[in-house]
Amino acid sequence: MYQVEVRQGNRLEKYRVPVGYNLFRLLKEKGFYMDSLCSGRGFCGKCKVRIVKGDTTASQCSPDEAGHLSFIERKEGIRLACRVQVNEDLAVEIPESSQRDAVILTEGESDVALNPRVVKRYVELPKPSLDDQSSDVDRLEKALDASGRLHATVIKGLPQTLRANDFKVTAVLFDQDIIAVEGGDTSDAKYGVAVDIGTTTMVGFLMDLATGQQLDVYSAINPQRQHGADVITRIDFTLENQNGLEVLSGLVRDEINSMLRAFCQRWNIRSDMIYHMTVVGNTIMMHLFAGLPVKNIAVSPFIPVIARSLELEPWQVGINMCPSGRITILPMVAGYVGADTIAAIMASGMVERDELALLIDIGTNGEIALGNREGIITCSTAAGPAFEGAHIRYGMGGVKGAISRVRIAGDGIRYDTIGGQPPRGICGSGIVDAIAQMLKAGIVEATGRMKNSEEAKVELSDGLASRVKELDGKPAFLIASKEEGALDDIYICQKDVREVQLAKAAIASGIHILMREMGVRYEDIQKVYLAGGFGNYIDYDHAADIGLIPSQLRSKIVAIGNAAGTGAKMALLSKGYMEMAEFIRHKTSYIELSSRPDFQSAFVDFISF
Amino acid sequence: MYQVEVRQGNRLEKYRVPVGYNLFRLLKEKGFYMDSLCSGRGFCGKCKVRIVKGDTTASQCSPDEAGHLSFIERKEGIRLACRVQVNEDLAVEIPESSQRDAVILTEGESDVALNPRVVKRYVELPKPSLDDQSSDVDRLEKALDASGRLHATVIKGLPQTLRANDFKVTAVLFDQDIIAVEGGDTSDAKYGVAVDIGTTTMVGFLMDLATGQQLDVYSAINPQRQHGADVITRIDFTLENQNGLEVLSGLVRDEINSMLRAFCQRWNIRSDMIYHMTVVGNTIMMHLFAGLPVKNIAVSPFIPVIARSLELEPWQVGINMCPSGRITILPMVAGYVGADTIAAIMASGMVERDELALLIDIGTNGEIALGNREGIITCSTAAGPAFEGAHIRYGMGGVKGAISRVRIAGDGIRYDTIGGQPPRGICGSGIVDAIAQMLKAGIVEATGRMKNSEEAKVELSDGLASRVKELDGKPAFLIASKEEGALDDIYICQKDVREVQLAKAAIASGIHILMREMGVRYEDIQKVYLAGGFGNYIDYDHAADIGLIPSQLRSKIVAIGNAAGTGAKMALLSKGYMEMAEFIRHKTSYIELSSRPDFQSAFVDFISF
Repeated sequence: MYQVEVRQGNRLEKYRVPVGYNLFRLLKEKGFYMDSLCSGRGFCGKCKVRIVKGDTTASQCSPDEAGHLSFIERKEGIRLACRVQVNEDLAVEIPESSQRDAVILTEGESDVALNPRVVKRYVELPKPSLDDQSSDVDRLEKALDASGRLHATVIKGLPQTLRANDFKVTAVLFDQDIIAVEGGDTSDAKYGVAVDIGTTTMVGFLMDLATGQQLDVYSAINPQRQHGADVITRIDFTLENQNGLEVLSGLVRDEINSMLRAFCQRWNIRSDMIYHMTVVGNTIMMHLFAGLPVKNIAVSPFIPVIARSLELEPWQVGINMCPSGRITILPMVAGYVGADTIAAIMASGMVERDELALLIDIGTNGEIALGNREGIITCSTAAGPAFEGAHIRYGMGGVKGAISRVRIAGDGIRYDTIGGQPPRGICGSGIVDAIAQMLKAGIVEATGRMKNSEEAKVELSDGLASRVKELDGKPAFLIASKEEGALDDIYICQKDVREVQLAKAAIASGIHILMREMGVRYEDIQKVYLAGGFGNYIDYDHAADIGLIPSQLRSKIVAIGNAAGTGAKMALLSKGYMEMAEFIRHKTSYIELSSRPDFQSAFVDFISF
Repeated sequence: MYQVEVRQGNRLEKYRVPVGYNLFRLLKEKGFYMDSLCSGRGFCGKCKVRIVKGDTTASQCSPDEAGHLSFIERKEGIRLACRVQVNEDLAVEIPESSQRDAVILTEGESDVALNPRVVKRYVELPKPSLDDQSSDVDRLEKALDASGRLHATVIKGLPQTLRANDFKVTAVLFDQDIIAVEGGDTSDAKYGVAVDIGTTTMVGFLMDLATGQQLDVYSAINPQRQHGADVITRIDFTLENQNGLEVLSGLVRDEINSMLRAFCQRWNIRSDMIYHMTVVGNTIMMHLFAGLPVKNIAVSPFIPVIARSLELEPWQVGINMCPSGRITILPMVAGYVGADTIAAIMASGMVERDELALLIDIGTNGEIALGNREGIITCSTAAGPAFEGAHIRYGMGGVKGAISRVRIAGDGIRYDTIGGQPPRGICGSGIVDAIAQMLKAGIVEATGRMKNSEEAKVELSDGLASRVKELDGKPAFLIASKEEGALDDIYICQKDVREVQLAKAAIASGIHILMREMGVRYEDIQKVYLAGGFGNYIDYDHAADIGLIPSQLRSKIVAIGNAAGTGAKMALLSKGYMEMAEFIRHKTSYIELSSRPDFQSAFVDFISF
């Protein structure tokens, strides 16, 4: 056990924590307010703390972490709390700057306070007698002054719970319904889970609904991936296999149950004390989770079964939480603009403001939204998962060992990997960097054609020319080699460049069409929200250099991290945000790009760098 | 096939029906309005028709049926439609008098028309296109202008139902919820079932919710009976056997499923077109059906788990009907005054009137209600099932072969049996007759003591004296003997007289306490509603003679048949009556007799004849 002393403003506290305990987790648990968009995953760079005592800790900064800190900050012992494990006695200060810009609950512009749909009420009921022969249910409902639905399983257990606890119980209400009755006063134990089901990755957040604190995060690869990397392949799987829909539903539900099991074990809570779950993701993921057929989303006119929010009871989808609790799937816009986009729009706050904003969520698909409080238009581009490292020869996700930064300096190449480990592959931000730098160095032409080794020898420095090789008869550029310590020779090849061209052209064309549809110019757009972990990692200049984001908007970019997950948490923590999600759905319209000839021509315009 | 010509007022119709078809059923099916309280079971004597052509039929009247008809009616060929099987060509007239006094829907005093909670709406939806990419659910909800819950299974089947039926579908709404979506226009096919679960017998009614017509009746012995004849024994069974509650729940649910199967087969309807079920019965039967523990009802202060109405989805109780339909258990008053009493109060109409009325429901227990629109007080008496023939040495239910009428005339005995068959035992109305006549003849003394054969020889005529025998060392009076054609020698014995004394004293004391509680006298009571099949059978004079009903109220008796079942049907056919059932619950209070010393002393006062 080590001692950690924490100061925030006038508050000074001391804690004893186990060896290796995460500092961010400690601060969140103890109710210190710190801004965080990525929930302690090291993406957003917002949870800055000053290490006042603890020299080793102050200097242990990894290259990735350092990317979030200025030179002066590093000298002053500033670190990201989420990257600090307690391995000595520490004294820590939370600077004022880390308390600004909170997205959840404390944002100045929003008046929605912690107000979850789950409410716990401790009541001491009058005991039955010959003078008061009211039924158990009447007795409870009278004390609560409640009149909603009462689940049959709750009614069944009521007599025993009342009598084993001297008629002192805690009722759990979801809106007006009594969903559980627990013996004694349990009003402090109230949990919810927000889940973001991505096509590639899933993230879940365990939230304490009594305090609004985020307790834990769980992330995993979406196990449906074994049946297809993108949504279309998954839809095909449900069509080609008799039980395909059930198989895909089962996989994602099992993973969510694993998540809940992990949360319950780590935090020593009973699964039936998780009363509410909010779920976001693209429309196909939402359908598969709910067990709804996706067939008609795949073919024109691309009709989903449901777009409004859907409330399920856990038994309906086989989720192991409070049996009469609720699972809320957030509303969707259309077949290819889902609950994740509505959640991201909500998290960005763009629908609450007058200023015109553009939101770009680059995941396995690229969803784009443009608008303000007057209304929002959205579209989806088949950007493909290039920026998640898929369909890229040496691509990989943003995990340890991935090359996340690339610089071509003079004759050679420098790169950083996540976790500072030997390179195993290259992730989205590394790909953007590499291609932008290859363009600048003349290795890639504006058309996307890569120079071959003959041309390279003539036009490039020897150092760079020696890295231009050939793979499958096409040019390929060596980013990292085994000789230099990589686990494999890692190339960017011609096909990778083409993939990135297709992806960036799709996104740029989508932005173009939305702007044309709304009749606005670049100077009208005041903010560009980049959602998704990718948005926190990439070099904005490089993204503009390759044309992923119009260079006119370069200076307006704000990375908002896993905004879909943030939106799911907001809906979990506050009824008001759940209503706002429905409001956003009604304010938001969808532009079907596939039906527009002007999209095709824009795409051609944007295909070159 | 025979031809049946039916005339009602100006309406004249001809039908061809199979041999042996029931006339009542035909008339109900074809939409002729006839009053019926017992739903064609021969109890209420209300479905009178005149046989204009068909001499054999006109004269085939059984003694029981004849009891409902005057001498002149019989001469004029009047019969009860429910007792007529078509075995020749017939011409039938429905006299105007058979259309009066309807309890359901047409009663002058009630303004509640056919208005079931289940509504069907046929809609033709606009088809999806690239210009209208609304989700299937949005498309449907917009057309219906509905915004209630949509069951997950309904959502799942929606895409297929819409597309297989050219987007022309019928939505089934239960209140605001969409519980099913069917292809094409099915708005005429809308069924519900009302069930009365008695401790001894169960009755179910198949109702056409589109027309309000009763289509069919199903009755059966409550299969729980194998685990105890009365509610206390059943409660004990749940306490003494680990799965006792599940066993009893399962038995009654299985029987209801058999009922539904029978209805569906006979009427060729799909089980998923039965959308709503209303259920009444005493509080213990309601708890066992819902699977709720009954332990606390058995011991002071006799607390039920629930008294308000309870809405269940069919899967929760394993009932095979529309999977997202509803089962409504009507509200109860207390542990021993159940949904059957509330339903009977509703069917009697007493809560809607100024006149003070007394309602007596003599079944396995005896529930009594006293009041008017100002309020109602109720009690339950442990009358025991003597009037259902139980605990009576030669007792039996009101089925074929039961002695249902007894007269002691001069030196001998005359009796009628149900169905005119050789006697097998004696049912409730026969027991009341027998004891009343034995009292009058001096065979039973006012204290309930029976004369022994020595005394009989001195005081009675030779014919009667010869019938006084001895069983188990106590006097017994021979009602029917094998020599006279009975299947067994059938006696009323001393113990039977004591059982009847206990039962009638309990009911009379209950009436007395309610009247004292309300501060009213016999002359203040304007109607006495006798609910239960028993009430249609018994001789009111004899009931007064033995003190079952105070003689001062004799002239005010109105038999209302299976009023509990009628109430269940009313709640099924009209939302208004469902609301009225809750209204009655709030207007009704319960007097616990077991806690009152004045009940004990009244009981002693009433024990003698």
